[in-house]
Amino acid sequence: METVFSKFETVKYEGPSSENALAYQYYDAERVVLGKPLKDHLRFAVAYWHSLAMNGSDPFGGPTIERPWMGAGDPIAQAKVKADAAFELFRVLDLPFFCFHDADVAPAGDTLAEGLKNLHVIADYFAEKMETSSTKLLWGTANLFSHPRFMAGASTNPDPDVFAWCAATVKNCMDVTKKLGGSNYVLWGGREGYETLLNTNMKQELEQMGRFLTLVVEYKHTIGFEGQILIEPKPKEPTSHQYDFDAATVYGFLKRFGLENEVKLNLEANHATLAGHSFEHEIATAGSLGVLGSLDINRGDALLGWDTDQFPNDLWTMTMSMYHVIKAGGLGKGGCNFDAKVRRQSFTAEDMIHAHVGGVDICTRAFLTAAKLIEDGRYDALLTERYAGWSKPDAAAMLSGKMSLDEIAAKALADGINPKPRSGKQEQIENLLMRAIYSAKL
Amino acid sequence: METVFSKFETVKYEGPSSENALAYQYYDAERVVLGKPLKDHLRFAVAYWHSLAMNGSDPFGGPTIERPWMGAGDPIAQAKVKADAAFELFRVLDLPFFCFHDADVAPAGDTLAEGLKNLHVIADYFAEKMETSSTKLLWGTANLFSHPRFMAGASTNPDPDVFAWCAATVKNCMDVTKKLGGSNYVLWGGREGYETLLNTNMKQELEQMGRFLTLVVEYKHTIGFEGQILIEPKPKEPTSHQYDFDAATVYGFLKRFGLENEVKLNLEANHATLAGHSFEHEIATAGSLGVLGSLDINRGDALLGWDTDQFPNDLWTMTMSMYHVIKAGGLGKGGCNFDAKVRRQSFTAEDMIHAHVGGVDICTRAFLTAAKLIEDGRYDALLTERYAGWSKPDAAAMLSGKMSLDEIAAKALADGINPKPRSGKQEQIENLLMRAIYSAKL
Amino acid sequence: METVFSKFETVKYEGPSSENALAYQYYDAERVVLGKPLKDHLRFAVAYWHSLAMNGSDPFGGPTIERPWMGAGDPIAQAKVKADAAFELFRVLDLPFFCFHDADVAPAGDTLAEGLKNLHVIADYFAEKMETSSTKLLWGTANLFSHPRFMAGASTNPDPDVFAWCAATVKNCMDVTKKLGGSNYVLWGGREGYETLLNTNMKQELEQMGRFLTLVVEYKHTIGFEGQILIEPKPKEPTSHQYDFDAATVYGFLKRFGLENEVKLNLEANHATLAGHSFEHEIATAGSLGVLGSLDINRGDALLGWDTDQFPNDLWTMTMSMYHVIKAGGLGKGGCNFDAKVRRQSFTAEDMIHAHVGGVDICTRAFLTAAKLIEDGRYDALLTERYAGWSKPDAAAMLSGKMSLDEIAAKALADGINPKPRSGKQEQIENLLMRAIYSAKL
Amino acid sequence: METVFSKFETVKYEGPSSENALAYQYYDAERVVLGKPLKDHLRFAVAYWHSLAMNGSDPFGGPTIERPWMGAGDPIAQAKVKADAAFELFRVLDLPFFCFHDADVAPAGDTLAEGLKNLHVIADYFAEKMETSSTKLLWGTANLFSHPRFMAGASTNPDPDVFAWCAATVKNCMDVTKKLGGSNYVLWGGREGYETLLNTNMKQELEQMGRFLTLVVEYKHTIGFEGQILIEPKPKEPTSHQYDFDAATVYGFLKRFGLENEVKLNLEANHATLAGHSFEHEIATAGSLGVLGSLDINRGDALLGWDTDQFPNDLWTMTMSMYHVIKAGGLGKGGCNFDAKVRRQSFTAEDMIHAHVGGVDICTRAFLTAAKLIEDGRYDALLTERYAGWSKPDAAAMLSGKMSLDEIAAKALADGINPKPRSGKQEQIENLLMRAIYSAKL
Repeated sequence: METVFSKFETVKYEGPSSENALAYQYYDAERVVLGKPLKDHLRFAVAYWHSLAMNGSDPFGGPTIERPWMGAGDPIAQAKVKADAAFELFRVLDLPFFCFHDADVAPAGDTLAEGLKNLHVIADYFAEKMETSSTKLLWGTANLFSHPRFMAGASTNPDPDVFAWCAATVKNCMDVTKKLGGSNYVLWGGREGYETLLNTNMKQELEQMGRFLTLVVEYKHTIGFEGQILIEPKPKEPTSHQYDFDAATVYGFLKRFGLENEVKLNLEANHATLAGHSFEHEIATAGSLGVLGSLDINRGDALLGWDTDQFPNDLWTMTMSMYHVIKAGGLGKGGCNFDAKVRRQSFTAEDMIHAHVGGVDICTRAFLTAAKLIEDGRYDALLTERYAGWSKPDAAAMLSGKMSLDEIAAKALADGINPKPRSGKQEQIENLLMRAIYSAKL
Repeated sequence: METVFSKFETVKYEGPSSENALAYQYYDAERVVLGKPLKDHLRFAVAYWHSLAMNGSDPFGGPTIERPWMGAGDPIAQAKVKADAAFELFRVLDLPFFCFHDADVAPAGDTLAEGLKNLHVIADYFAEKMETSSTKLLWGTANLFSHPRFMAGASTNPDPDVFAWCAATVKNCMDVTKKLGGSNYVLWGGREGYETLLNTNMKQELEQMGRFLTLVVEYKHTIGFEGQILIEPKPKEPTSHQYDFDAATVYGFLKRFGLENEVKLNLEANHATLAGHSFEHEIATAGSLGVLGSLDINRGDALLGWDTDQFPNDLWTMTMSMYHVIKAGGLGKGGCNFDAKVRRQSFTAEDMIHAHVGGVDICTRAFLTAAKLIEDGRYDALLTERYAGWSKPDAAAMLSGKMSLDEIAAKALADGINPKPRSGKQEQIENLLMRAIYSAKL
Repeated sequence: METVFSKFETVKYEGPSSENALAYQYYDAERVVLGKPLKDHLRFAVAYWHSLAMNGSDPFGGPTIERPWMGAGDPIAQAKVKADAAFELFRVLDLPFFCFHDADVAPAGDTLAEGLKNLHVIADYFAEKMETSSTKLLWGTANLFSHPRFMAGASTNPDPDVFAWCAATVKNCMDVTKKLGGSNYVLWGGREGYETLLNTNMKQELEQMGRFLTLVVEYKHTIGFEGQILIEPKPKEPTSHQYDFDAATVYGFLKRFGLENEVKLNLEANHATLAGHSFEHEIATAGSLGVLGSLDINRGDALLGWDTDQFPNDLWTMTMSMYHVIKAGGLGKGGCNFDAKVRRQSFTAEDMIHAHVGGVDICTRAFLTAAKLIEDGRYDALLTERYAGWSKPDAAAMLSGKMSLDEIAAKALADGINPKPRSGKQEQIENLLMRAIYSAKL
Repeated sequence: METVFSKFETVKYEGPSSENALAYQYYDAERVVLGKPLKDHLRFAVAYWHSLAMNGSDPFGGPTIERPWMGAGDPIAQAKVKADAAFELFRVLDLPFFCFHDADVAPAGDTLAEGLKNLHVIADYFAEKMETSSTKLLWGTANLFSHPRFMAGASTNPDPDVFAWCAATVKNCMDVTKKLGGSNYVLWGGREGYETLLNTNMKQELEQMGRFLTLVVEYKHTIGFEGQILIEPKPKEPTSHQYDFDAATVYGFLKRFGLENEVKLNLEANHATLAGHSFEHEIATAGSLGVLGSLDINRGDALLGWDTDQFPNDLWTMTMSMYHVIKAGGLGKGGCNFDAKVRRQSFTAEDMIHAHVGGVDICTRAFLTAAKLIEDGRYDALLTERYAGWSKPDAAAMLSGKMSLDEIAAKALADGINPKPRSGKQEQIENLLMRAIYSAKL
C-alpha cells in the first residue's frame, strides 16, 4: 500500500530553533497550557476534500494535481486507494482529527440507494483503519452542492424531490458520522441561497431551510448522536447570496426556528472576510451569542473576491482569533479544521506536507501567544478598566430593567450629567499587542 | 421671509412629454394605482439634514454650500431661518412628508437640559408652520453620533453616563415626534459598534443596546405613541463595524430581545450595498421576516466603499425594490425618505430642486412599472410555476412537520426519486423585465 | 446535421411592440444611424467558448450543460459536430461575426505539432461553412491559460520552453485568423501575472511580456495581416494579479515598449468592474489615449468579486458606454463580442437564444439612445460650456507651452485672480440623461 | 513655549527587552545595516497634517481633538504656536525628517498674494527653528484639494483660472521647499479626477495635467532645485476616480509626457489597497519600472473602502515592502513619511507619541528582517533558481530580439518541446518567510 505520502516521515516537534522545514517548531501536542494539552485545545483536523480530492483546477484552468486514485478504475477500489493515502497523510502530519464530505470519500453511485450504500462501505473501511490510527473524526458532512441536482438549492430547492434527496443523504451521513464516532455533524449551505433574486421566492425558501434544520436536530436526538450540529456560514460563492450569510444572520435564523440551543457555528476565516468581517469578529460574535462551535482554519486574500482557502500565515489575525476562542470558553467538541488548499502550482505531495506544517505551527504559536496574553493580564485589564463604570450600582440599575426611559432621563437631568470623552487608546493597545504577538517568548 | 427656495415655483406634474426640467413627468400624486393614490403608496419625505444642514464638506475638503442660516447669529433665530427655508422647500417640491434629527433642527445648547428645551422651541415653531403646510412628519430621530461624547458609542458606550444622556435625548425626541404627529420614530446606530475590536467588549455592548431598545419600546407604549419604532441597519461607516449590520442581523437582534413584533426596519439603498446586498435583497429579506417598515431612498456607488448618498437614477433597481415593497404589503406607516444629498459641486439651490425632481420621478416610474408588472401577471406566474411542486400533498407534508427525517428518507428510497434539473430561466426572465422596465407604457 | 439549435427559427427584427420573446425589438441590422447601418456600427459577435464550449461547472459544482459534442468520440469529429452547431447558432441569431480561442474549436492533440495541425483542420472546416454563412470572424485568439503548462504564466513563465510554446501557438493562431479573414487578433493574458508576488520576479516577467508582444506585432507585419492586434485588460482572476490590469496600465506598457501605435485594447465590461472602474470609464480612457479597439460585451455583479460574465441588462451603463464609443470615433475594425455566458441553471439551448436576443437588443437600444443624445446636442453643449474657458487665448497659452510656471504665477498675481466655484450640475445632467435613456423615442 | 508635547521626554532606543512603552525596541538610529545607519535607510518623517492639524472629525462626527492653535486668534501667531508644538514633537520622537502641505503650516490669507506671503513667513520661522533642530524637511507639497475652488479639480479644473492659481501656489511652495532644503517636492492630485464622468472631458483634463507636470519639472530645473519631484498615486477618494490611480497608471502618464526620467513615485500603503493592490506590489512595480521615489507609511483596513490612514502594525506586509525597497536600490532621497493619523478616540497628546513609537518600531523591525532575509540568501536563491532557465543561451536569444516569432515557433517544433509543470512552492516559501519574519533574531 505504497501511497504518495508514504515516503514522508512523521512530522515531529523540534522546537523554535529547528532548521528542519518539515518539523513543528511550536506544535508540541502534549504541552500543557491553560490546564490541558495543546492537542485538546486545538483539535487539529485534516480536510479530506482539499487534501485528497482537490485537483488544482480553477475557473480558467484544468487540473494540475494528479493522484493515483483520480484515474480510471473501479470507483470503490479507487476510493479505498484514496483512503489509504489519507491515513498515510494523517500519519505523516500526526494530527488528531480529520473531516469529510460523503462525496469526498465514496462514489456517488447511479442511484440514491447505491450512493448511500457506498458511503457505508467506505465508512467501514475507515473504521477498520481507525483501529490502528490515532486520527479520529472531527466531523462529517454531506455534499449537497456539487451535483447538478442541487444547482437551484438543496433543502431550498424549488423541487421538493431535491429536499427529499437531501433528507435521505443527510440522514445517512449522520448515521455514518455517528458510527465513526464523529464529534460533530456540519451543514454548509453552498447552494442554499440564490443565483438571482429575480427567480426566487425567498420566504418560501427560508421556511424550507428552517424545516430541514429542525428535521436534522430531531433526528440527532432520535439516534442519540452526542455530537454537535454545526452550521457553517458563508455569504456568497457559489451563489450570489447564501442565506447563512454570517454568524449574526445564522443566529437570527436559529432564533426564528427555536434552534439556538441545538445548533452552533462552524466559522471559517475566508468566509468571514467574504462577508466583510474579520475572523476574530465572527468568533467574538458567536462567543457573545453563545453559539461558537468549531473553526475552519484558512485565510482569504483581502484583495480578491472569492474563497481562496489558503493556508494561514497571519500571526496577528490568528492570535486575536485564538484569544476570542479562549475568552468564549474554548472549542469544546469543535476543533481547528484545515479547510485550506495548496495553490494550483503546488501540485507535489511535498507541498501538501509543507502547507500543513506551516498552518499547524502558526495556529499553535497564535494559541500560545493568546494564552500568554491572557495570563499576563495587562491587556484584559485595559478592557476591564474601560467598562468599569458599568459595575457601579446606578449604571447596573439602568441595565437591569429597574429604571424606565423617563426615569433614566429624569435622573440624567437632575444629575446635570456631562460625560467627558476618554481616549480609546487604540494605538497604545496595538503597540502592546505588537510586542506581545511578534516578540513573545513562548 | 424670503429664502433661497422662495424663487422656485411649486413643481407640478406635467406628464412624460414635458420638456420642463423642473416638472414631474411621472409623479401625479393623486393618480390611483393598485387601489389608492400614489402619494399614499410612496409617502415621499424630504430629509432635513441633507437638504438644509449639509454644507458640502468631505474628508479632504471644506464646505462648498453656504446658506444664510449657517453663518453666525443667535442659534434659535438661525434655526428658525432654516425652518422657514425648509418649509419653502417642502412647498416647492410639494411632497407629503419630511424627516429630521434633533441636531438638524435645533441648537444643541450648552447643557443637556438646554438642548432638550431647544428642540421643543423649534418643534413648536414647526407645529405652527405645519398648520398651513401640507407636509407632515414621517419620522423624527435623535442624532447620537456627531458629538464627541458619542465617539465610543451611544447606548453601547463604555461610559454609563452616555447611555443616560442618550435615554434623555431619545425620550425627548420621541415626545416631540409624537407632538408633531410623526408616523414613525427611527434609531440609527451610527456609533453603535466599534472602531476596533481590540478595545471592545462586544457582549457587554450588545446587552446595553438590547436594553436601550427595550426601554424605547416600553416608553412608546407609556406615552401612547402610535407610530412605528424603526431601526435603520448599516454595516459600517462611521465605525469599522456597526451592530445593526443589515436586515437579517437586526432581525436576529430583535428576536434575541423579544422585540420582533415591536420594531421594524428602515432600509436604505446605500446601506444595503455597503453590506454587500442589493436594495431589493434587503427589502425582500425584511418582507420575508415581517419587519419591513420604511425606506431611505438614495443610491451608492458600487465602485466606492463609503456612503455616497446620491439621488437614485437606476430604474431597474428601483423597480425591483418597489416590486418587493408591494409584495410585502406596502410601506404602511413608513414612506420613501430621500436620504440623499446633492454632490459637493452642486451647491446652488436649483441643484437641490433638480435632485429631488429626478429622485421623485424615478421612484414613481419604478412604482408604476412594478404595479404594472404585477397586474400583468406573467412574471409572477413564472415564479409560482417554479415552486408549484411544493403545493402537492406529499411535498406539503414534508414542510408541515408531519414527517421525520428518516420517514422522508425512507420514502425517497422507496420512490426511487431522481430529481431532474429544470432551467432557472434567468436570462428569459431578465429579458421579460428589461422589456417591462425600459419600455412600459405607463 | 440536426443540432441543438436547428429547431429555432432565425431571430427577426419585429419592432418595439413585438410580443415575441425571440424577436429583436431594436436590432434592425440595416437601419441607418449616424450615416451607416447598425450592423456596421455594432459588429456583434458570438463567442464560441461561452456558447459552444462552456458546460456550467463552477468552483463548487460540476457540469450542468450537456451537448452532444462534449461526450466521448473522435476529437476531430466532435469538433466538427460542435462547429455545425456553432454555425446553426449563428444562423439563428443572424449576427455578423464570431470569435474563438484555438482551444474552443480544435482538439489540443498529444503534441505541439498535432495541436497546431488540428487547428488548421478545423479552420478549413470553418472556411467551408463560411462560404454559405453570413457570419464572419471578428477575431481569433490562443488559449494560453487553461492547460497546466501555463499555470505559472504563458509568455511570462519562468520556463523559457513555455514562452517558446506560446510563440508557436500564437504564430499558428495568427496564421489561421488571417486565413479566415479575421478583423483582429486578441491576446488575453489570463496567466500573465502572479499567484503570489513571493515567488515572482516582476521585472523579468514584464520584460518577457514586452518581448512577446513585440514579436507578435512584428509577425503581423511579416505576414501582412491587416487586422488589429488587441490586448484585453483584466486585473485579476485567475491569478491574484494580472499585468494587463486595466486600460491605463496597458497603455503604459505599450508606451514602454513603443507599441502604442501598433496595439489597441479589447475592453470588457466585467473586467472593468473587477479593476474598480465603470465600463464607460475604460472606454473613455482608451478613447482619450487613442487605443480603443473592440468591446467584450457582458456585465459583472458589483456585489461579487469574480468574473460573472453575465449578459448585459443595464441600459444606463450600456448607453453611456456607447456614447463614449461614438465620441472616440466608433469601433472601426473592432466590434461587440458577447463574452457572456448563460447562468449555470440556464442549461437549455433555448436559454442560449434568449440570452443573446436580450443582449443584442439592450446594446442596440443603448446605441440608438446614445446616437440620439448626440444628435440632440443638449448634453454635449453642457460639457462644451463647462470647459469653454479653455478656448480663450490666455488659457490656451498656458496649455500650449508658451508660458512657464513662473510666468503663469506672475500673471495670476498681477491679475489678482480669485476663481469662483461653478455648479457641476451633476443631478441636472443625470435627470437629463434619465429622461433621454429611459424615455427616448427610438 | 510650553506645548502639549513638552512634557514628554525624547523617545530612546532601549532594545527588544525594554518594558517601556515609550521607548524604541528596534529603532537604533545609528545601527549600521547593509552598509549604512538605519536612519539613512529609513529616513523617517513626521507628517505635519495628521500630527498637528487633524482634529478627529469624520463624515458623521465633529472634532474630538482640541489643540491650543486650533482656537481663535491671529492666524500667523497661531501658526507659530503650532510650529512650536511641531518641533517639540520632532524632538520627542527624535526622527530625522518632517513633511508638510502649505495649508497645514500657514494661513491661507484673503487673497492669493497674501497666502503666498504667509507661507514664506512661516517658512522663515521654520528655518530659524531648524537651526537648532536635528529634523530636516523630507518634502513639501501644496494642498490643492481642500478649498472649494478646487472642488472640480486643480490643474484639471474646467476653469483656467484655477490652473493659474495652482501654478502660482506650486511655484511658491517649490521655492519654499528649496529654501528649507527639502529633499523632494510632492504632488498629490486629490481632486485631479472626476466626481462623475457624466460632466467630464477626460481627454482635455489629462492634457491639462500633463502640461502642469511639465511646467513643474521645467521650473525645478529653472531654480536648480536638486530634490526629486514625486507624484503620489491614489485611485479614488475624495473623487470617484483619480487619474493618478496607481503606480502603473502614473508610469504610463509619465511616459506619455516624456517625464519618466524626471518624476518618481511617492507610494502609500493605504492608497495601494484602495487600488486593489498590496503595498509591496506597488513598490515592486515602481522598482521594476525605475520610478520608486519615497513611501507614505500607514495601513488601511482591508474591510473598509476609505483611506483610514492608520499607523502600521502588520509585520509581514511591512517586511516584504522593505524587502522590495532594498531590492529596488533603497529610497535614495525619499524616506518613510508617517502619513498616518491617530484614531478619532485617541485624542490625547500621549496617543500621538504611542502611535509614532509603534510605527517606527514595526518599520524598523521590518527593515532589519528584510535585510537579514537578503543576507541569509535562501529566499533569493529560490527565486533565482525558479528563473534559471532564462540564463541559458537559447532562452536569452528569444528575449534579446535575435529570433522572430516564426523562428521561435520553428525551433519549438523542431525540438519537440513539451514543458513540464514545476511546483511554485508557495507554501514552502511562505513557511520560510513565516519563520524569518516572526522569529528572526535581530
